[in-house]
Amino acid sequence: MSFSLKKLSKHTATAIVGDSNCKINNVASLKNAKSGGIAFFSNPKLKQQLLETQASAVILDKKFIDLCPTHALITDNPYLVFAKIAALLNPLPKPAAGIHPTAIIADSSKLGENCYIGPNTVIEDDCVIGDNVYIGSNCIIHHSCSLDESCRLVNSVTLCDKTSLGKRVIIHPGVVIGSDGFGLANDEGRWFKTPQLGGVQIGDDVEIGANTTIDRGSLGDTILEYGVKLDNQVHIAHNVKVGAHTAIAGCVAIAGSSTIGKYCGIGGGAGIGGHLEITDKVEIGGMTRVARSIKEPGTYVSGTPVQPYKKWLRSSALFTKIDELSSRIKKLEKK
Amino acid sequence: MSFSLKKLSKHTATAIVGDSNCKINNVASLKNAKSGGIAFFSNPKLKQQLLETQASAVILDKKFIDLCPTHALITDNPYLVFAKIAALLNPLPKPAAGIHPTAIIADSSKLGENCYIGPNTVIEDDCVIGDNVYIGSNCIIHHSCSLDESCRLVNSVTLCDKTSLGKRVIIHPGVVIGSDGFGLANDEGRWFKTPQLGGVQIGDDVEIGANTTIDRGSLGDTILEYGVKLDNQVHIAHNVKVGAHTAIAGCVAIAGSSTIGKYCGIGGGAGIGGHLEITDKVEIGGMTRVARSIKEPGTYVSGTPVQPYKKWLRSSALFTKIDELSSRIKKLEKK
Amino acid sequence: MSFSLKKLSKHTATAIVGDSNCKINNVASLKNAKSGGIAFFSNPKLKQQLLETQASAVILDKKFIDLCPTHALITDNPYLVFAKIAALLNPLPKPAAGIHPTAIIADSSKLGENCYIGPNTVIEDDCVIGDNVYIGSNCIIHHSCSLDESCRLVNSVTLCDKTSLGKRVIIHPGVVIGSDGFGLANDEGRWFKTPQLGGVQIGDDVEIGANTTIDRGSLGDTILEYGVKLDNQVHIAHNVKVGAHTAIAGCVAIAGSSTIGKYCGIGGGAGIGGHLEITDKVEIGGMTRVARSIKEPGTYVSGTPVQPYKKWLRSSALFTKIDELSSRIKKLEKK
Repeated sequence: MSFSLKKLSKHTATAIVGDSNCKINNVASLKNAKSGGIAFFSNPKLKQQLLETQASAVILDKKFIDLCPTHALITDNPYLVFAKIAALLNPLPKPAAGIHPTAIIADSSKLGENCYIGPNTVIEDDCVIGDNVYIGSNCIIHHSCSLDESCRLVNSVTLCDKTSLGKRVIIHPGVVIGSDGFGLANDEGRWFKTPQLGGVQIGDDVEIGANTTIDRGSLGDTILEYGVKLDNQVHIAHNVKVGAHTAIAGCVAIAGSSTIGKYCGIGGGAGIGGHLEITDKVEIGGMTRVARSIKEPGTYVSGTPVQPYKKWLRSSALFTKIDELSSRIKKLEKK
Repeated sequence: MSFSLKKLSKHTATAIVGDSNCKINNVASLKNAKSGGIAFFSNPKLKQQLLETQASAVILDKKFIDLCPTHALITDNPYLVFAKIAALLNPLPKPAAGIHPTAIIADSSKLGENCYIGPNTVIEDDCVIGDNVYIGSNCIIHHSCSLDESCRLVNSVTLCDKTSLGKRVIIHPGVVIGSDGFGLANDEGRWFKTPQLGGVQIGDDVEIGANTTIDRGSLGDTILEYGVKLDNQVHIAHNVKVGAHTAIAGCVAIAGSSTIGKYCGIGGGAGIGGHLEITDKVEIGGMTRVARSIKEPGTYVSGTPVQPYKKWLRSSALFTKIDELSSRIKKLEKK
Repeated sequence: MSFSLKKLSKHTATAIVGDSNCKINNVASLKNAKSGGIAFFSNPKLKQQLLETQASAVILDKKFIDLCPTHALITDNPYLVFAKIAALLNPLPKPAAGIHPTAIIADSSKLGENCYIGPNTVIEDDCVIGDNVYIGSNCIIHHSCSLDESCRLVNSVTLCDKTSLGKRVIIHPGVVIGSDGFGLANDEGRWFKTPQLGGVQIGDDVEIGANTTIDRGSLGDTILEYGVKLDNQVHIAHNVKVGAHTAIAGCVAIAGSSTIGKYCGIGGGAGIGGHLEITDKVEIGGMTRVARSIKEPGTYVSGTPVQPYKKWLRSSALFTKIDELSSRIKKLEKK
């Protein structure tokens, strides 16, 4: 597949500097691009790579145009334009619609037009599957689920009962949605399992990374709003609500009944305690431990910097005695 | 399904205040309950919700009875009573016993009475499956496993060989039990794999959350005692022993050969180092890093509080210089 | 299976002290070993167990030979010799080569000699599978993958398209390799998915623990070099490169485009930020947060020690005021 720069500039609403008939057939990095390739430039540290690139065209901000050795698309968001062109040049291959003979689909479930259901996939009773849905191999869709149009479940995905997916939801392998939350009542030291009766609502254009788990609500639903993006191995506990357009990196855990605002970003490995409220437009650093609600937008971090072991031993020992240091300062001040 | 308050009070050994003939057919929150619903009240902050609830009955401590606008069940553990009533009103739907035609079961394995084996499930040689066991779709039970009566494997569960489950064990999707532990011998920089020869013993009434992994022992067994509850994405390494009635929240990792006592609680994302001993009745905070044994019951935490980024930069820079601060205090004291 | 001590000493290039005809048929711990068993001794704390062992032979350093109550193999790396003997005595059982009738293999894919393909496994188009490969039940191999000789996929493993495995790679259940990375371009607050076009290259003798995920590269490949060992639930993001013979413990997360050197060790639950470089021979402590490149070999740690809750409250409150403590010291010094 190949497009003229003119066509790409139209598709991405960018201006051309250079030959609008130049043919582009792949995306690449500045360093590895060859003739026919288009790359993007946004990190000033890579200036030398820009100067030496063999790409046929480069996507960049107009302020860098003098550095560009070849044709260019001009934009103030080069990475976004690059992503859009990459998507245009690399449409997802999709097998012909159809149901693999080994798929097992309950009679009471309804499939839309033009769906693909892969080998060994099981769809239980009373599910509603929209048009153009792709469900790869070895998925399990429990009863009473709904998938709106154009969802894509790559393979080995589990949707427990009462899971509802919006349009164009993408789910990577090994994801489990709608499993029971960690609801336990203490009975003189022993744990009694509280039935988990709610469901999960996933909004349009949500994407969920490999081996992530999202628990069903205990009474109401666990909710991911429109455009939420989850990376791999994220853990979303019961009754959590994640606001629209929030992105959550790998291995984040969010404990039960917490609410995350819209347009937030949570760094990898961070943990959010239970029953907290994080307002809109909050950025949380990687591996940060959030044990209180956050009411002001901004960037938040916890933890200590990495240190060579012996230095860390000293720092961390004194951390446990910081109380004593404080008292000694007070004593000195009194003198 | 519907029960009178009288029946519910008997089932839960609670006293009734109000109409014992009142019919209850669902559990709900104070806020969302309607006629026919029963809710519980234990958090004094929700007093207003109690005053305004539309529930037909409320479960609460007798000291709050004057606030209750409707019939009541009296108990000093309202959440437990609520959980028991929720379980009574919402029995797990269970498909009729039977073996799906696509399940593959070795001739040498034995099934009890009244079992359900779902589509595409594979049971290898020499397994013993007790009565009333439910094994959902796409599970893999390797050879020489035993499952005692009334276990429930939701779907896509792996039990490697030599895994033994007690009675009523519940395992959620994506769980892997009995995989090889991280046993490596160093051979001049290269790693030589140490065969992992032990098994896994899971006690009665254990519940294991989605995508959790539990490694087999290297020589002896990895052990979860009676009533242990694991949340999602927990990692239990080889030769770990977890004592009875301990609850472990999501994304906790326990390194090899550590022993956790009975009646412990481990917060989400915490990490327990290898070869440690944690005594009974220890509570560990979320995301706490435990690098030493804990010999006294109590609550333990590590880490620093979340801070706005710029403040954190200052705190954490000074953490690495706390040694110097300490010296300066010493110098001042000498003067 | 049983071997003479003579045979074992030859196999492991160790010296014998005692009866070279002594028969060994199992490996065990010092404490649990019985007649026919061989154990190893390297931790001086277990001296009493050595003195009382019922093992037929013990593997140990010559400096401890006087403590050994039975026959011995002499080596300066007892655990490695133990591992090698354990492997000799416990060869992996392997089902006869063959393709299970429920496996689904595309005509365009090529299988080597003597392969085993288990029930419900799906191999899509244009894959190349080497000799002596074992692929257990319910695996999904997407199109255009290659597996070199003697790989072992235990069960329920996903390889997305363009995944390439070297020789003797071992992959435990629930692993996902080649899933899309977390590539998102921001479009005025909304996220636009950047197509992930690269693959994953896994070197010879790599082992990957249960439920670990490894994302495909965005343009180039994600790479694990020769002899890398990953424990369970590790997360390797797109474009990461892990150097030869590096071992990564459970629940570690490595963010996108970071490079880890050769012969490194990363402790459980640690997190490595994106676009960082960790040089060769770096050891990183468990749950350490690495937010900068590390250019010198050595051991690195972050975080604070576990403390009883009340003490921690005081330490952590003062951590957020350490800036103020520092100012007060400065003030005192000025006087």
